[in-house]
Amino acid sequence: MAASIVRVTGVLCRAHGVFQARRQLSASMALFQDIPNSLWKLGRLNHVAIAVPDLEKARSLYENVLGAKVSETVPLPEHGVYTVFVELGNTKLELLHPLGQNSPISGFLHKNKAGGMHHICIEVDNIKGAMADLKKKNIRVLSEEPKIGAHGKPVVFLHPKDCDGVLVELEEA
Amino acid sequence: MAASIVRVTGVLCRAHGVFQARRQLSASMALFQDIPNSLWKLGRLNHVAIAVPDLEKARSLYENVLGAKVSETVPLPEHGVYTVFVELGNTKLELLHPLGQNSPISGFLHKNKAGGMHHICIEVDNIKGAMADLKKKNIRVLSEEPKIGAHGKPVVFLHPKDCDGVLVELEEA
Repeated sequence: MAASIVRVTGVLCRAHGVFQARRQLSASMALFQDIPNSLWKLGRLNHVAIAVPDLEKARSLYENVLGAKVSETVPLPEHGVYTVFVELGNTKLELLHPLGQNSPISGFLHKNKAGGMHHICIEVDNIKGAMADLKKKNIRVLSEEPKIGAHGKPVVFLHPKDCDGVLVELEEA
Repeated sequence: MAASIVRVTGVLCRAHGVFQARRQLSASMALFQDIPNSLWKLGRLNHVAIAVPDLEKARSLYENVLGAKVSETVPLPEHGVYTVFVELGNTKLELLHPLGQNSPISGFLHKNKAGGMHHICIEVDNIKGAMADLKKKNIRVLSEEPKIGAHGKPVVFLHPKDCDGVLVELEEA
């Protein structure tokens, strides 16, 4: 499991450069002196990612059967996936299908042949602050540095064993 | 799988009364003469449900570690679950934990000991119209009538095998 997760973060993302952490002091400093909670804030649910074995069928389900607005199929060879975005008004679903021999979601689909929910992505305002804070709180962050995710923004993944079995992606919005 | 799904819909929900279908005609009637697409519309993502083995730990993760706004623990004995709502601004997470001997999520947690994403709920404006339309499009709806879900609104579940391995709840918003 851990190996496959590292693989997800390794292939879905690539190394990212310098970040500027905002330093906002607050009462929560008393609890987390080095990394006050107010250094970062959790935001909106950016997307729910669904791994699918048949992308055109899944695309058709959301577009033609459920009547949602969906994007064209977007190949992301650097991430090893084809993606279709399903707009739901307040957030979106991301349909993922393997692209290439080393896709990070091939293992998931091997275990879940019909497909399934792969991860949720929640926005944060300061990903470096979040990473430092979460590490102090014993949440395993699956990379030492943020990577650039499928939307061109810095992301990290949190270990599902520390998040109730859910692979959680944080994205700096 | 099918039995456990029927169990979810059976215990999470209870029978619902009369609905008024809105009759809005549109160009899509040509394709779906009896149940035009425009009879119902897909809406926002209402929530992502996460089944958790330790509700207080999960509650603490979202409240104290991630800094989200969470509700009190809400026992819903008629649905066989304890629930904690996690507000994410645009939508919410629902943490579910078994309540009682016959909880509909016990089987899921037996298979997924660390917890995991259980279902997604998408709003519709006309659940009866959606059900009739989806049945015609060969999507299995897991109850003959809408039930009253955890929010006091009519809901139905769609078969995960018809939805890329995802248990999809539709709620009339």
